[in-house]
Amino acid sequence: MTDFETLAVDAADRIMTVTLSRPEKLNAFNATMRDELIAAFDMSDADDEVRAVIVTGAGRAFCAGADLSGNGRGFANPGAPLGPDGKEDWSDPSIRDGGGLVTLRIFRSLKPVIAACNGPAVGIGATMQLAMDIRLASDTARYGFVFARRGIVPEACSSWFLPRIVGISRALEWCYSGRVFGAEEARESGLVRSVHQGEGLLPAARAIAAEIAENTAPVSVALTRQMMWRMMGAASPMEAHRVDSRGVAARVASADVREGVASFLEKRPAAFSDRVSTDMPGYFPWWTDEPWQ
Amino acid sequence: MTDFETLAVDAADRIMTVTLSRPEKLNAFNATMRDELIAAFDMSDADDEVRAVIVTGAGRAFCAGADLSGNGRGFANPGAPLGPDGKEDWSDPSIRDGGGLVTLRIFRSLKPVIAACNGPAVGIGATMQLAMDIRLASDTARYGFVFARRGIVPEACSSWFLPRIVGISRALEWCYSGRVFGAEEARESGLVRSVHQGEGLLPAARAIAAEIAENTAPVSVALTRQMMWRMMGAASPMEAHRVDSRGVAARVASADVREGVASFLEKRPAAFSDRVSTDMPGYFPWWTDEPWQ
Amino acid sequence: MTDFETLAVDAADRIMTVTLSRPEKLNAFNATMRDELIAAFDMSDADDEVRAVIVTGAGRAFCAGADLSGNGRGFANPGAPLGPDGKEDWSDPSIRDGGGLVTLRIFRSLKPVIAACNGPAVGIGATMQLAMDIRLASDTARYGFVFARRGIVPEACSSWFLPRIVGISRALEWCYSGRVFGAEEARESGLVRSVHQGEGLLPAARAIAAEIAENTAPVSVALTRQMMWRMMGAASPMEAHRVDSRGVAARVASADVREGVASFLEKRPAAFSDRVSTDMPGYFPWWTDEPWQ
Repeated sequence: MTDFETLAVDAADRIMTVTLSRPEKLNAFNATMRDELIAAFDMSDADDEVRAVIVTGAGRAFCAGADLSGNGRGFANPGAPLGPDGKEDWSDPSIRDGGGLVTLRIFRSLKPVIAACNGPAVGIGATMQLAMDIRLASDTARYGFVFARRGIVPEACSSWFLPRIVGISRALEWCYSGRVFGAEEARESGLVRSVHQGEGLLPAARAIAAEIAENTAPVSVALTRQMMWRMMGAASPMEAHRVDSRGVAARVASADVREGVASFLEKRPAAFSDRVSTDMPGYFPWWTDEPWQ
Repeated sequence: MTDFETLAVDAADRIMTVTLSRPEKLNAFNATMRDELIAAFDMSDADDEVRAVIVTGAGRAFCAGADLSGNGRGFANPGAPLGPDGKEDWSDPSIRDGGGLVTLRIFRSLKPVIAACNGPAVGIGATMQLAMDIRLASDTARYGFVFARRGIVPEACSSWFLPRIVGISRALEWCYSGRVFGAEEARESGLVRSVHQGEGLLPAARAIAAEIAENTAPVSVALTRQMMWRMMGAASPMEAHRVDSRGVAARVASADVREGVASFLEKRPAAFSDRVSTDMPGYFPWWTDEPWQ
Repeated sequence: MTDFETLAVDAADRIMTVTLSRPEKLNAFNATMRDELIAAFDMSDADDEVRAVIVTGAGRAFCAGADLSGNGRGFANPGAPLGPDGKEDWSDPSIRDGGGLVTLRIFRSLKPVIAACNGPAVGIGATMQLAMDIRLASDTARYGFVFARRGIVPEACSSWFLPRIVGISRALEWCYSGRVFGAEEARESGLVRSVHQGEGLLPAARAIAAEIAENTAPVSVALTRQMMWRMMGAASPMEAHRVDSRGVAARVASADVREGVASFLEKRPAAFSDRVSTDMPGYFPWWTDEPWQ
């Protein structure tokens, strides 16, 4: 696969595994990693062989946060210059929050994304996982939303994601104190789904991915991902009805549904033929892009 | 009461019980059941004697999902034709997702709705319960959000409801895998409130309904239901303040509040006189209808 | 500090403690308490020495709800008169829901707010706590969302707050029945974070406040509070990205971030110099006021 500087990417058994790979820096996040993570999710979306993505870290850490070796420059971002109209011009991605560019890219993923958190995850190392669908932790995982201890603010859209995952009170308490906490507190609060002995972490993530790959229609899964995440912000169930009426109408006529129903009635595995690259229904995407996006 | 083909409906002790009744088909959902469920909630809203609604299934299942005996036609929905203006014309309800028509009707209910899930609940059998307020399960209940295994998509507005009930990660994991799971997993995740031995299920549901019927003002309960559900999609607490300031203003002058306060101070049961059919305040409903609604 | 009639307010160790103080009335809420609570949060926001606010009750109760000694007049609110344009004119705060004026003021707080619930909390005594960030309870705490038993409706924006804290099903069940329940049920449901023996309640609240005061940058905490609460109503993570990109841009150039990074690398406590009263970034507030606000 593509040769990355900060990532190791491999694919097997229809699962793409993205490993943050700057182990000598505890996989600290920099501008190259930002761009390569975005490129990796472009790859997984474009490759019909990939049914799910796992993200983990090389060595003993998941990601120690923004690379501070430039003493604060790891946070990047000199602010947006004013354009000819006197308004802030954010067209250059390098002046936008880099963590947010990554989590917004994950938000748009058409494949399920599973975090396998193998060790410390601090700052962007913690917040990048919030846009992933399912989070698993090893018993050595640690999490820190440390922004207020550095004088900065929650980034990577974590003010949107974190309260929706663990509730507003827990989210505020973690971000107010900046305290680093362990895997068990993460599990009790719902931040992670399950905690595993170190060597059991990746197999557990792969088992979840395999169940998806073996049983379900890729186009259905891609639509499900975008429906669920985007309806988190919808004002009423009518918005879902408008989208899922179109979804039922489009999919009921598909070869996949004929196969899905036939295989169910015949009690045999289904062999779905529709592909994400070519067979997404005409109404997709149903949303319009927002400013900066 | 009205004679239904797919439902048994009875009322006693101010509780209306709606029983899905196609036991030879495991109460599979078809167009008749869609229309009759909508009619049943019209009845419960119109009848001031009904203080709460319980929904359960006849025989060993709650509802096995869309009736597939027409081999996929149970999913209905041929897509919307284009109207004279060249836009999709969804005015015919039969081309809209039938599950969504049911859950949107339940969403608008003026009476509390309690699901008493007595056995397998798959597809629309699971998603119709999401618009109900409180879900109870028997120990033989099973749930399956199986859409991706059939090649279809989550319907009945479940992409809006499910993440709000069990969180986005659990909702995605269930819908990605299409796995069927039991009552205990449903309880741990918050999908159901409590699990009961088979014969204890309906009495437990009736006890919740009875506590409401015996202690509270029907107009207050109807307003509470719509306030809570609709504020789930509100951008800020100011939207609630605009509605509840009107609610306090309208209700503080009512006979019910005089009785509620007097009975409290006199330590006796209250006898509320305001009726949902005639005494909802003038500002209700405070929302405007949305497209298709 | 300011002399209040219904509150005792004191500040020590950078924590402002607001004690509801009408113990002979179980700290029942009246118009004076409404105005004084709003004034107290104006004080805490204006005082850079205050890093967190604790709210508790004097005597054996937290707050028994609206003062009903005028037999229902405690609910206030005669409805809004029509203005010259024929529309309701809500410009006089006394005709708006008084509980909502308090919770909206707490919502806008720039300092973390911790509820230390020392006994019964009923009606507005329960709902005022919902806009606070972190709720602790003594083992003698009791909660009641009793509105439907009095013929009234949920107020103080509780239809917005409560389902976001404990989920829609639990919120509806409590408000439908009006049942009063204890500290343990509050903890299991996520309404409160932890339950404490009576004499341990305030020390536990102070320990949380102290961890914030000792470790974090006040401007970061103020921004975090508003980001998290306001993003609870945001339609998509792009809204957070627009705000946190500005936040990172503004803060990365600050003295606080230089100190935060330097102290971290030098493994010493940080001494942050930016003040909430003078150093909030130029883009704050990023929202526009809504009607009535």
